[in-house]
Amino acid sequence: VADQPLFARVAFIGIGLIGSSMARVMRRDHLAGHIVACARRPETREACLKLGIADQVTADYAEAVRDADLVVIATPISTNETIAKAIAAHLKPGAIITDVGSVKQAVIDAIAPHLPSNVHFVPAHPLAGTEHSGPESGFAELFQGRWCILTPLPNTDATAIEKVSTFWRKAGSKLQTMQAGHHDKVLAITSHLPHLIAYTIVGTADDLAEDLKQEVIQYSASGFRDFTRIAASDPVMWRDIFLNNREATLDVLQRFTEDLTALQRAIRRGDGDALEKLFARTRAIRRSVIDAKQA
Amino acid sequence: VADQPLFARVAFIGIGLIGSSMARVMRRDHLAGHIVACARRPETREACLKLGIADQVTADYAEAVRDADLVVIATPISTNETIAKAIAAHLKPGAIITDVGSVKQAVIDAIAPHLPSNVHFVPAHPLAGTEHSGPESGFAELFQGRWCILTPLPNTDATAIEKVSTFWRKAGSKLQTMQAGHHDKVLAITSHLPHLIAYTIVGTADDLAEDLKQEVIQYSASGFRDFTRIAASDPVMWRDIFLNNREATLDVLQRFTEDLTALQRAIRRGDGDALEKLFARTRAIRRSVIDAKQA
Repeated sequence: VADQPLFARVAFIGIGLIGSSMARVMRRDHLAGHIVACARRPETREACLKLGIADQVTADYAEAVRDADLVVIATPISTNETIAKAIAAHLKPGAIITDVGSVKQAVIDAIAPHLPSNVHFVPAHPLAGTEHSGPESGFAELFQGRWCILTPLPNTDATAIEKVSTFWRKAGSKLQTMQAGHHDKVLAITSHLPHLIAYTIVGTADDLAEDLKQEVIQYSASGFRDFTRIAASDPVMWRDIFLNNREATLDVLQRFTEDLTALQRAIRRGDGDALEKLFARTRAIRRSVIDAKQA
Repeated sequence: VADQPLFARVAFIGIGLIGSSMARVMRRDHLAGHIVACARRPETREACLKLGIADQVTADYAEAVRDADLVVIATPISTNETIAKAIAAHLKPGAIITDVGSVKQAVIDAIAPHLPSNVHFVPAHPLAGTEHSGPESGFAELFQGRWCILTPLPNTDATAIEKVSTFWRKAGSKLQTMQAGHHDKVLAITSHLPHLIAYTIVGTADDLAEDLKQEVIQYSASGFRDFTRIAASDPVMWRDIFLNNREATLDVLQRFTEDLTALQRAIRRGDGDALEKLFARTRAIRRSVIDAKQA
Protein backbone atom coordinates (compact mmCIF):
# COMPACT_ATOMS: atom_id res chain seq x y z
CA VAL A 1 0.00 0.00 0.00
CA ALA A 2 1.40 3.45 -0.93
CA ASP A 3 0.45 5.00 2.40
CA GLN A 4 2.22 2.39 4.53
CA PRO A 5 4.81 4.14 6.73
CA LEU A 6 8.38 2.77 6.90
CA PHE A 7 7.70 1.63 10.49
CA ALA A 8 4.18 1.04 11.83
CA ARG A 9 5.27 1.56 15.42
CA VAL A 10 8.45 3.25 16.70
CA ALA A 11 9.70 3.40 20.30
CA PHE A 12 12.29 5.93 21.44
CA ILE A 13 14.15 4.95 24.60
CA GLY A 14 15.48 8.37 25.55
CA ILE A 15 14.43 11.37 23.51
CA GLY A 16 16.86 14.28 23.76
CA LEU A 17 18.48 16.29 20.98
CA ILE A 18 19.11 13.29 18.69
CA GLY A 19 16.00 11.21 19.47
CA SER A 20 13.64 14.15 19.14
CA SER A 21 15.27 15.23 15.87
CA MET A 22 14.74 11.70 14.52
CA ALA A 23 11.10 11.80 15.66
CA ARG A 24 10.68 15.12 13.85
CA VAL A 25 12.03 13.57 10.64
CA MET A 26 9.55 10.69 11.05
CA ARG A 27 6.69 13.15 11.52
CA ARG A 28 7.75 15.29 8.57
CA ASP A 29 8.12 12.36 6.19
CA HIS A 30 5.37 10.15 7.63
CA LEU A 31 7.82 7.35 8.39
CA ALA A 32 6.14 6.16 11.60
CA GLY A 33 2.52 5.15 12.17
CA HIS A 34 2.78 5.60 15.92
CA ILE A 35 5.57 7.00 18.08
CA VAL A 36 6.12 6.08 21.73
CA ALA A 37 8.65 8.05 23.78
CA CYS A 38 10.11 6.48 26.89
CA ALA A 39 11.70 8.94 29.31
CA ARG A 40 12.56 8.80 32.97
CA ARG A 41 11.74 12.41 33.76
CA PRO A 42 8.09 13.62 33.74
CA GLU A 43 9.14 16.98 32.21
CA THR A 44 10.65 15.19 29.22
CA ARG A 45 7.49 13.14 28.68
CA GLU A 46 5.31 16.25 28.91
CA ALA A 47 7.58 18.10 26.48
CA CYS A 48 7.25 15.29 23.91
CA LEU A 49 3.46 15.46 23.98
CA LYS A 50 3.47 19.25 23.89
CA LEU A 51 5.91 19.27 20.95
CA GLY A 52 3.76 16.68 19.18
CA ILE A 53 6.75 14.41 18.51
CA ALA A 54 5.23 11.39 20.32
CA ASP A 55 1.73 9.90 20.30
CA GLN A 56 2.31 8.18 23.59
CA VAL A 57 4.74 8.60 26.47
CA THR A 58 5.80 6.28 29.25
CA ALA A 59 8.51 5.75 31.84
CA ASP A 60 8.23 1.97 31.41
CA TYR A 61 10.65 0.23 29.05
CA ALA A 62 8.42 -2.83 28.55
CA GLU A 63 5.37 -0.73 27.69
CA ALA A 64 7.44 1.41 25.30
CA VAL A 65 8.81 -1.41 23.17
CA ARG A 66 5.68 -3.58 23.12
CA ASP A 67 4.74 -4.27 19.49
CA ALA A 68 7.33 -1.74 18.22
CA ASP A 69 8.80 -2.40 14.76
CA LEU A 70 11.70 -0.06 15.45
CA VAL A 71 13.27 0.61 18.83
CA VAL A 72 15.69 3.54 18.96
CA ILE A 73 18.01 3.61 21.97
CA ALA A 74 19.07 7.25 22.33
CA THR A 75 20.27 7.54 25.92
CA PRO A 76 23.79 8.05 27.33
CA ILE A 77 25.88 4.92 26.71
CA SER A 78 26.15 3.89 30.37
CA THR A 79 22.43 3.08 30.43
CA ASN A 80 22.51 0.77 27.42
CA GLU A 81 23.12 -2.54 29.17
CA THR A 82 20.33 -1.95 31.69
CA ILE A 83 17.99 -0.97 28.88
CA ALA A 84 18.88 -4.00 26.76
CA LYS A 85 18.20 -6.31 29.68
CA ALA A 86 14.92 -4.57 30.47
CA ILE A 87 13.48 -4.59 26.96
CA ALA A 88 14.76 -8.00 25.77
CA ALA A 89 11.80 -10.09 26.92
CA HIS A 90 9.24 -7.61 25.55
CA LEU A 91 10.49 -7.13 22.00
CA LYS A 92 8.28 -8.09 19.07
CA PRO A 93 9.79 -10.91 16.96
CA GLY A 94 11.42 -9.35 13.91
CA ALA A 95 11.76 -5.94 15.59
CA ILE A 96 14.70 -3.76 14.58
CA ILE A 97 16.79 -2.27 17.40
CA THR A 98 19.06 0.64 16.61
CA ASP A 99 21.00 3.20 18.62
CA VAL A 100 22.76 6.52 18.07
CA GLY A 101 25.77 6.17 20.38
CA SER A 102 29.04 7.96 19.66
CA VAL A 103 31.04 4.84 20.56
CA LYS A 104 30.18 1.59 18.80
CA GLN A 105 32.13 -1.39 20.14
CA ALA A 106 31.15 -0.73 23.77
CA VAL A 107 27.53 -0.22 22.73
CA ILE A 108 27.50 -3.50 20.84
CA ASP A 109 29.05 -5.26 23.84
CA ALA A 110 26.42 -3.73 26.14
CA ILE A 111 23.37 -4.45 24.01
CA ALA A 112 23.87 -7.39 21.62
CA PRO A 113 24.41 -10.22 24.15
CA HIS A 114 21.06 -9.50 25.82
CA LEU A 115 18.83 -9.38 22.76
CA PRO A 116 16.82 -12.44 21.67
CA SER A 117 17.89 -14.08 18.38
CA ASN A 118 14.64 -13.17 16.60
CA VAL A 119 15.29 -9.39 16.56
CA HIS A 120 17.76 -7.35 14.47
CA PHE A 121 20.32 -4.98 15.97
CA VAL A 122 21.66 -2.24 13.65
CA PRO A 123 24.12 0.03 15.53
CA ALA A 124 24.27 3.54 14.07
CA HIS A 125 26.04 6.80 14.79
CA PRO A 126 24.74 10.00 13.20
CA LEU A 127 27.63 12.51 13.15
CA ALA A 128 25.42 15.42 14.04
CA GLY A 129 24.62 17.45 17.10
CA THR A 130 24.65 20.83 18.72
CA GLU A 131 25.74 21.96 22.18
CA HIS A 132 22.09 21.94 23.28
CA SER A 133 20.27 19.09 25.04
CA GLY A 134 16.70 17.91 25.57
CA PRO A 135 13.70 17.27 23.29
CA GLU A 136 13.06 21.00 22.76
CA SER A 137 16.49 21.42 21.14
CA GLY A 138 15.84 18.95 18.31
CA PHE A 139 15.04 19.85 14.70
CA ALA A 140 14.34 17.74 11.60
CA GLU A 141 17.21 19.27 9.57
CA LEU A 142 19.89 18.24 12.09
CA PHE A 143 21.07 15.30 9.98
CA GLN A 144 20.87 17.00 6.58
CA GLY A 145 24.14 16.53 4.68
CA ARG A 146 25.82 14.87 7.67
CA TRP A 147 27.33 11.41 7.83
CA CYS A 148 25.64 8.50 9.54
CA ILE A 149 27.95 5.55 10.22
CA LEU A 150 26.43 2.07 10.53
CA THR A 151 28.45 -0.65 12.25
CA PRO A 152 26.37 -3.82 11.73
CA LEU A 153 27.67 -7.16 12.95
CA PRO A 154 28.69 -9.70 10.29
CA ASN A 155 25.44 -11.67 10.67
CA THR A 156 23.02 -8.72 10.78
CA ASP A 157 19.92 -9.13 8.59
CA ALA A 158 20.34 -7.19 5.32
CA THR A 159 16.68 -6.12 5.20
CA ALA A 160 16.92 -4.60 8.68
CA ILE A 161 20.07 -2.68 7.69
CA GLU A 162 18.29 -1.43 4.59
CA LYS A 163 15.26 -0.18 6.57
CA VAL A 164 17.47 1.73 8.99
CA SER A 165 19.46 3.08 6.03
CA THR A 166 16.24 4.25 4.39
CA PHE A 167 15.38 6.25 7.49
CA TRP A 168 18.78 7.97 7.51
CA ARG A 169 18.62 8.72 3.79
CA LYS A 170 15.20 10.34 4.35
CA ALA A 171 16.82 12.38 7.15
CA GLY A 172 19.29 13.68 4.55
CA SER A 173 22.32 11.79 5.82
CA LYS A 174 25.19 10.32 3.83
CA LEU A 175 25.69 6.68 4.87
CA GLN A 176 28.88 4.78 5.56
CA THR A 177 29.36 1.26 6.90
CA MET A 178 32.35 0.55 9.11
CA GLN A 179 33.69 -2.03 11.50
CA ALA A 180 32.86 -0.90 15.08
CA GLY A 181 36.44 -0.88 16.34
CA HIS A 182 37.59 1.15 13.38
CA HIS A 183 34.76 3.62 13.90
CA ASP A 184 35.89 4.13 17.49
CA LYS A 185 39.46 4.80 16.38
CA VAL A 186 38.46 7.37 13.72
CA LEU A 187 36.03 9.13 16.05
CA ALA A 188 38.62 9.23 18.84
CA ILE A 189 40.60 11.59 16.62
CA THR A 190 37.87 13.57 14.85
CA SER A 191 35.55 14.00 17.79
CA HIS A 192 36.61 12.62 21.18
CA LEU A 193 40.07 14.20 21.37
CA PRO A 194 38.80 17.63 20.19
CA HIS A 195 36.11 17.52 22.86
CA LEU A 196 38.59 16.44 25.52
CA ILE A 197 40.92 19.31 24.61
CA ALA A 198 38.08 21.82 24.52
CA TYR A 199 36.78 20.70 27.91
CA THR A 200 40.31 21.01 29.32
CA ILE A 201 41.08 24.48 28.00
CA VAL A 202 37.74 25.86 29.13
CA GLY A 203 38.31 24.25 32.53
CA THR A 204 41.77 25.84 32.71
CA ALA A 205 40.18 29.24 32.07
CA ASP A 206 37.50 28.55 34.66
CA ASP A 207 40.23 28.07 37.27
CA LEU A 208 41.63 31.58 36.72
CA ALA A 209 41.14 34.35 39.23
CA GLU A 210 37.67 35.88 38.85
CA ASP A 211 38.73 39.23 37.30
CA LEU A 212 41.01 37.60 34.74
CA LYS A 213 38.24 35.09 33.95
CA GLN A 214 35.83 37.92 33.19
CA GLU A 215 38.35 39.37 30.73
CA VAL A 216 38.87 35.99 29.07
CA ILE A 217 35.11 35.80 28.50
CA GLN A 218 34.98 39.37 27.25
CA TYR A 219 37.73 38.80 24.67
CA SER A 220 36.80 35.19 23.90
CA ALA A 221 36.11 35.87 20.21
CA SER A 222 39.83 35.63 19.44
CA GLY A 223 39.92 31.81 19.54
CA PHE A 224 38.70 30.68 22.96
CA ARG A 225 35.04 31.08 22.01
CA ASP A 226 35.09 28.19 19.53
CA PHE A 227 36.25 25.89 22.34
CA THR A 228 33.48 27.00 24.70
CA ARG A 229 30.86 25.89 22.18
CA ILE A 230 32.36 22.39 21.98
CA ALA A 231 32.84 22.29 25.76
CA ALA A 232 29.14 23.06 26.28
CA SER A 233 28.07 19.63 25.01
CA ASP A 234 26.04 17.32 27.24
CA PRO A 235 28.15 16.37 30.31
CA VAL A 236 26.67 12.89 30.93
CA MET A 237 26.79 11.91 27.26
CA TRP A 238 30.45 12.91 27.06
CA ARG A 239 31.38 11.31 30.36
CA ASP A 240 30.07 8.04 28.93
CA ILE A 241 31.89 8.49 25.61
CA PHE A 242 35.27 8.81 27.33
CA LEU A 243 34.58 5.93 29.72
CA ASN A 244 33.53 3.72 26.82
CA ASN A 245 36.19 4.63 24.27
CA ARG A 246 38.98 4.73 26.77
CA GLU A 247 41.75 2.92 24.91
CA ALA A 248 41.40 4.78 21.60
CA THR A 249 41.02 8.15 23.34
CA LEU A 250 44.05 7.63 25.58
CA ASP A 251 46.07 6.48 22.57
CA VAL A 252 45.44 9.65 20.51
CA LEU A 253 45.76 11.78 23.65
CA GLN A 254 49.24 10.31 24.16
CA ARG A 255 50.25 11.29 20.61
CA PHE A 256 48.78 14.75 21.09
CA THR A 257 50.65 15.27 24.36
CA GLU A 258 53.95 14.29 22.74
CA ASP A 259 53.35 16.74 19.92
CA LEU A 260 52.38 19.49 22.36
CA THR A 261 55.54 18.89 24.36
CA ALA A 262 57.62 19.24 21.20
CA LEU A 263 55.88 22.53 20.40
CA GLN A 264 56.37 23.77 23.96
CA ARG A 265 60.06 23.00 23.64
CA ALA A 266 60.26 24.86 20.31
CA ILE A 267 58.69 27.93 21.91
CA ARG A 268 60.96 27.77 24.94
CA ARG A 269 64.07 27.44 22.76
CA GLY A 270 62.86 30.12 20.34
CA ASP A 271 62.94 27.67 17.42
CA GLY A 272 61.00 29.75 14.89
CA ASP A 273 61.73 27.40 11.99
CA ALA A 274 60.09 24.44 13.73
CA LEU A 275 57.01 26.53 14.55
CA GLU A 276 56.61 27.95 11.06
CA LYS A 277 57.08 24.51 9.49
CA LEU A 278 54.31 22.98 11.61
CA PHE A 279 51.94 25.90 11.08
CA ALA A 280 52.39 25.75 7.31
CA ARG A 281 51.69 22.00 7.39
CA THR A 282 48.43 22.39 9.35
CA ARG A 283 47.24 25.05 6.92
CA ALA A 284 47.35 22.41 4.17
CA ILE A 285 45.04 20.15 6.21
CA ARG A 286 42.44 22.92 6.26
CA ARG A 287 42.49 22.96 2.47
CA SER A 288 41.84 19.19 2.45
CA VAL A 289 38.86 19.71 4.77
CA ILE A 290 37.50 22.39 2.45
CA ASP A 291 38.10 20.17 -0.60
CA ALA A 292 36.19 17.34 1.17
CA LYS A 293 33.28 19.81 1.54
CA GLN A 294 33.35 19.46 5.34
CA ALA A 295 34.10 23.13 6.05
CA VAL B 1 36.93 72.42 7.14
CA ALA B 2 34.18 69.81 7.00
CA ASP B 3 35.81 67.84 4.21
CA GLN B 4 39.17 67.43 5.96
CA PRO B 5 39.94 63.70 6.31
CA LEU B 6 41.04 62.31 9.72
CA PHE B 7 44.55 61.80 8.28
CA ALA B 8 45.84 63.70 5.27
CA ARG B 9 48.42 61.04 4.46
CA VAL B 10 48.54 57.42 5.69
CA ALA B 11 51.34 54.91 5.20
CA PHE B 12 50.83 51.17 5.63
CA ILE B 13 53.99 49.22 6.30
CA GLY B 14 52.73 45.76 5.39
CA ILE B 15 49.26 45.40 3.95
CA GLY B 16 47.78 41.93 4.42
CA LEU B 17 44.41 40.93 5.87
CA ILE B 18 44.43 43.53 8.65
CA GLY B 19 46.19 46.41 6.87
CA SER B 20 44.07 46.12 3.75
CA SER B 21 40.87 45.94 5.82
CA MET B 22 41.91 49.15 7.59
CA ALA B 23 42.64 50.78 4.20
CA ARG B 24 39.18 49.74 3.03
CA VAL B 25 37.59 51.40 6.08
CA MET B 26 39.58 54.56 5.31
CA ARG B 27 38.36 54.51 1.71
CA ARG B 28 34.76 53.87 2.69
CA ASP B 29 34.64 56.63 5.30
CA HIS B 30 37.03 59.06 3.58
CA LEU B 31 39.41 59.02 6.54
CA ALA B 32 42.63 59.32 4.52
CA GLY B 33 43.57 61.93 1.92
CA HIS B 34 46.28 59.74 0.41
CA ILE B 35 47.25 56.13 1.14
CA VAL B 36 50.73 54.70 0.56
CA ALA B 37 51.27 50.96 0.83
CA CYS B 38 54.74 49.63 1.49
CA ALA B 39 55.23 45.97 0.65
CA ARG B 40 58.27 43.85 -0.04
CA ARG B 41 56.68 41.67 -2.71
CA PRO B 42 55.80 43.15 -6.14
CA GLU B 43 52.59 41.04 -6.28
CA THR B 44 51.35 42.65 -3.07
CA ARG B 45 52.05 46.13 -4.39
CA GLU B 46 50.27 45.36 -7.68
CA ALA B 47 47.29 43.90 -5.79
CA CYS B 48 46.94 47.10 -3.73
CA LEU B 49 46.74 49.26 -6.83
CA LYS B 50 44.39 46.86 -8.57
CA LEU B 51 42.12 46.71 -5.49
CA GLY B 52 42.20 50.50 -5.27
CA ILE B 53 43.15 50.46 -1.58
CA ALA B 54 46.35 52.49 -2.09
CA ASP B 55 47.12 55.60 -4.14
CA GLN B 56 50.79 54.84 -4.19
CA VAL B 57 52.93 51.75 -3.58
CA THR B 58 56.58 51.31 -2.75
CA ALA B 59 59.07 48.82 -1.38
CA ASP B 60 61.01 51.61 0.32
CA TYR B 61 60.27 52.36 3.98
CA ALA B 62 61.64 55.92 3.85
CA GLU B 63 59.56 56.82 0.80
CA ALA B 64 56.44 55.28 2.37
CA VAL B 65 56.51 57.24 5.62
CA ARG B 66 57.67 60.58 4.17
CA ASP B 67 55.17 63.27 5.16
CA ALA B 68 52.73 60.63 6.53
CA ASP B 69 50.43 61.76 9.36
CA LEU B 70 49.68 58.15 10.31
CA VAL B 71 52.01 55.19 9.89
CA VAL B 72 50.42 51.76 10.40
CA ILE B 73 52.88 48.92 11.00
CA ALA B 74 50.99 45.77 10.01
CA THR B 75 53.71 43.18 9.40
CA PRO B 76 54.64 40.06 11.39
CA ILE B 77 56.12 41.10 14.75
CA SER B 78 59.68 39.89 14.01
CA THR B 79 60.07 42.66 11.41
CA ASN B 80 59.09 45.49 13.74
CA GLU B 81 62.50 46.45 15.08
CA THR B 82 64.04 46.59 11.61
CA ILE B 83 61.12 48.70 10.40
CA ALA B 84 61.30 51.07 13.37
CA LYS B 85 65.01 51.64 12.76
CA ALA B 86 64.46 52.15 9.03
CA ILE B 87 61.63 54.67 9.29
CA ALA B 88 62.79 56.65 12.36
CA ALA B 89 64.86 59.27 10.54
CA HIS B 90 62.18 59.87 7.90
CA LEU B 91 59.11 60.44 10.06
CA LYS B 92 57.28 63.76 9.92
CA PRO B 93 57.36 65.65 13.25
CA GLY B 94 54.06 65.01 15.02
CA ALA B 95 53.35 61.84 13.04
CA ILE B 96 51.33 59.09 14.74
CA ILE B 97 52.76 55.57 14.57
CA THR B 98 50.44 52.66 15.34
CA ASP B 99 50.56 48.91 14.89
CA VAL B 100 48.18 45.95 14.94
CA GLY B 101 50.33 43.28 16.56
CA SER B 102 48.81 40.45 18.62
CA VAL B 103 51.48 40.84 21.31
CA LYS B 104 52.02 44.27 22.81
CA GLN B 105 54.98 44.38 25.24
CA ALA B 106 57.41 42.87 22.73
CA VAL B 107 56.15 45.23 20.02
CA ILE B 108 56.63 48.24 22.27
CA ASP B 109 60.14 47.05 23.14
CA ALA B 110 60.95 46.60 19.45
CA ILE B 111 59.56 49.91 18.20
CA ALA B 112 59.46 52.59 20.91
CA PRO B 113 63.21 52.93 21.65
CA HIS B 114 63.98 53.73 18.01
CA LEU B 115 61.38 56.43 17.41
CA PRO B 116 62.29 60.12 17.69
CA SER B 117 60.71 62.03 20.56
CA ASN B 118 58.62 64.26 18.28
CA VAL B 119 56.31 61.45 17.03
CA HIS B 120 53.52 59.60 18.87
CA PHE B 121 53.38 55.82 19.20
CA VAL B 122 49.94 54.30 19.90
CA PRO B 123 50.13 50.47 20.04
CA ALA B 124 46.85 48.78 19.09
CA HIS B 125 45.52 45.27 18.69
CA PRO B 126 42.26 44.75 16.80
CA LEU B 127 40.82 41.38 17.94
CA ALA B 128 39.67 40.43 14.48
CA GLY B 129 40.86 38.21 11.71
CA THR B 130 40.10 35.25 9.50
CA GLU B 131 42.21 32.28 8.47
CA HIS B 132 42.94 34.02 5.16
CA SER B 133 46.01 36.15 4.37
CA GLY B 134 47.02 38.84 1.88
CA PRO B 135 45.50 42.16 0.72
CA GLU B 136 42.80 40.39 -1.34
CA SER B 137 41.37 38.76 1.80
CA GLY B 138 40.58 42.04 3.57
CA PHE B 139 37.15 43.65 3.93
CA ALA B 140 35.93 46.85 5.58
CA GLU B 141 33.50 45.05 7.92
CA LEU B 142 36.22 42.91 9.54
CA PHE B 143 36.36 45.06 12.68
CA GLN B 144 32.62 45.67 13.06
CA GLY B 145 31.52 44.87 16.61
CA ARG B 146 34.97 43.52 17.54
CA TRP B 147 37.23 44.75 20.31
CA CYS B 148 40.31 46.85 19.65
CA ILE B 149 42.71 47.04 22.57
CA LEU B 150 45.00 50.06 22.87
CA THR B 151 48.10 49.80 25.07
CA PRO B 152 49.53 53.35 25.11
CA LEU B 153 52.57 54.14 27.22
CA PRO B 154 52.04 56.41 30.26
CA ASN B 155 53.43 59.46 28.44
CA THR B 156 51.62 58.99 25.12
CA ASP B 157 50.00 62.15 23.71
CA ALA B 158 46.23 62.12 24.41
CA THR B 159 45.36 63.75 21.08
CA ALA B 160 47.22 61.01 19.20
CA ILE B 161 45.39 58.32 21.19
CA GLU B 162 42.09 60.02 20.41
CA LYS B 163 42.80 60.16 16.66
CA VAL B 164 43.66 56.45 16.57
CA SER B 165 40.55 55.75 18.67
CA THR B 166 38.42 57.71 16.21
CA PHE B 167 39.64 55.51 13.39
CA TRP B 168 38.74 52.31 15.28
CA ARG B 169 35.33 53.65 16.24
CA LYS B 170 34.67 54.44 12.56
CA ALA B 171 35.72 50.84 11.79
CA GLY B 172 32.94 49.71 14.15
CA SER B 173 35.22 48.47 16.94
CA LYS B 174 34.65 48.61 20.68
CA LEU B 175 37.67 50.16 22.36
CA GLN B 176 39.51 49.13 25.49
CA THR B 177 42.71 50.49 27.00
CA MET B 178 45.03 48.11 28.83
CA GLN B 179 48.55 47.85 30.16
CA ALA B 180 50.68 45.98 27.57
CA GLY B 181 51.80 43.19 29.90
CA HIS B 182 48.25 42.55 31.03
CA HIS B 183 47.07 42.44 27.42
CA ASP B 184 49.65 39.77 26.68
CA LYS B 185 48.50 37.67 29.63
CA VAL B 186 44.80 37.87 28.69
CA LEU B 187 45.50 37.12 25.02
CA ALA B 188 47.76 34.19 25.94
CA ILE B 189 44.63 32.49 27.28
CA THR B 190 41.92 33.68 24.90
CA SER B 191 43.92 33.45 21.71
CA HIS B 192 47.48 32.14 21.85
CA LEU B 193 46.81 28.93 23.79
CA PRO B 194 43.74 28.04 21.65
CA HIS B 195 45.82 28.50 18.51
CA LEU B 196 48.69 26.46 19.95
CA ILE B 197 46.32 23.62 20.82
CA ALA B 198 44.62 23.76 17.43
CA TYR B 199 47.94 23.70 15.59
CA THR B 200 49.01 20.71 17.70
CA ILE B 201 45.89 18.61 17.23
CA VAL B 202 45.83 19.21 13.48
CA GLY B 203 49.52 18.34 13.35
CA THR B 204 48.84 15.14 15.29
CA ALA B 205 46.21 14.19 12.71
CA ASP B 206 48.57 15.07 9.88
CA ASP B 207 51.04 12.50 11.23
CA LEU B 208 48.54 9.64 10.95
CA ALA B 209 48.83 6.96 8.30
CA GLU B 210 47.47 8.25 5.00
CA ASP B 211 44.25 6.17 4.90
CA LEU B 212 43.28 7.04 8.47
CA LYS B 213 44.07 10.71 7.73
CA GLN B 214 41.66 10.68 4.81
CA GLU B 215 38.92 9.35 7.10
CA VAL B 216 39.68 12.01 9.71
CA ILE B 217 39.20 14.67 7.03
CA GLN B 218 36.02 13.01 5.78
CA TYR B 219 34.43 12.92 9.23
CA SER B 220 35.96 16.17 10.46
CA ALA B 221 32.59 17.85 11.06
CA SER B 222 32.27 16.10 14.43
CA GLY B 223 34.67 18.49 16.21
CA PHE B 224 38.03 18.36 14.43
CA ARG B 225 36.89 20.78 11.72
CA ASP B 226 36.69 23.77 14.08
CA PHE B 227 40.35 23.24 14.95
CA THR B 228 41.44 23.10 11.31
CA ARG B 229 40.03 26.58 10.72
CA ILE B 230 42.02 28.02 13.61
CA ALA B 231 45.12 26.05 12.56
CA ALA B 232 44.93 27.56 9.07
CA SER B 233 45.95 31.01 10.31
CA ASP B 234 49.03 32.70 8.89
CA PRO B 235 52.15 30.63 9.82
CA VAL B 236 54.68 33.49 10.01
CA MET B 237 52.37 35.74 11.99
CA TRP B 238 51.74 32.97 14.51
CA ARG B 239 55.38 31.91 14.70
CA ASP B 240 56.16 35.49 15.74
CA ILE B 241 53.33 35.63 18.28
CA PHE B 242 54.63 32.57 20.14
CA LEU B 243 58.24 33.75 19.99
CA ASN B 244 57.23 37.17 21.32
CA ASN B 245 54.75 36.15 24.01
CA ARG B 246 56.81 33.21 25.18
CA GLU B 247 56.51 33.57 28.97
CA ALA B 248 52.75 34.12 29.13
CA THR B 249 52.08 31.37 26.58
CA LEU B 250 54.29 28.82 28.35
CA ASP B 251 52.67 29.73 31.66
CA VAL B 252 49.09 29.02 30.50
CA LEU B 253 50.31 26.01 28.55
CA GLN B 254 51.74 24.61 31.78
CA ARG B 255 48.38 25.00 33.53
CA PHE B 256 46.60 23.44 30.56
CA THR B 257 48.96 20.46 30.53
CA GLU B 258 48.41 19.84 34.24
CA ASP B 259 44.64 19.91 33.73
CA LEU B 260 44.89 17.61 30.73
CA THR B 261 46.97 15.14 32.72
CA ALA B 262 44.32 15.12 35.46
CA LEU B 263 41.62 14.43 32.86
CA GLN B 264 43.72 11.69 31.29
CA ARG B 265 44.07 10.09 34.71
CA ALA B 266 40.30 10.30 35.31
CA ILE B 267 39.66 8.53 32.02
CA ARG B 268 42.25 5.85 32.71
CA ARG B 269 40.84 5.18 36.19
CA GLY B 270 37.25 5.31 34.94
CA ASP B 271 36.42 8.20 37.28
CA GLY B 272 33.08 9.20 35.79
CA ASP B 273 32.22 11.63 38.58
CA ALA B 274 35.33 13.74 37.97
CA LEU B 275 34.60 13.86 34.23
CA GLU B 276 30.94 14.81 34.63
CA LYS B 277 31.80 17.47 37.20
CA LEU B 278 34.31 19.16 34.89
CA PHE B 279 32.02 18.94 31.85
CA ALA B 280 29.13 20.54 33.77
CA ARG B 281 31.46 23.34 34.90
CA THR B 282 32.65 24.15 31.37
CA ARG B 283 29.06 24.29 30.15
CA ALA B 284 28.49 27.19 32.53
CA ILE B 285 31.38 29.11 30.94
CA ARG B 286 29.64 28.85 27.57
CA ARG B 287 26.62 30.55 29.08
CA SER B 288 28.85 33.39 30.31
CA VAL B 289 30.26 33.79 26.80
CA ILE B 290 26.74 33.96 25.39
CA ASP B 291 25.69 36.43 28.09
CA ALA B 292 28.72 38.60 27.20
CA LYS B 293 27.41 38.60 23.61
CA GLN B 294 30.65 37.05 22.34
CA ALA B 295 29.05 33.88 20.92
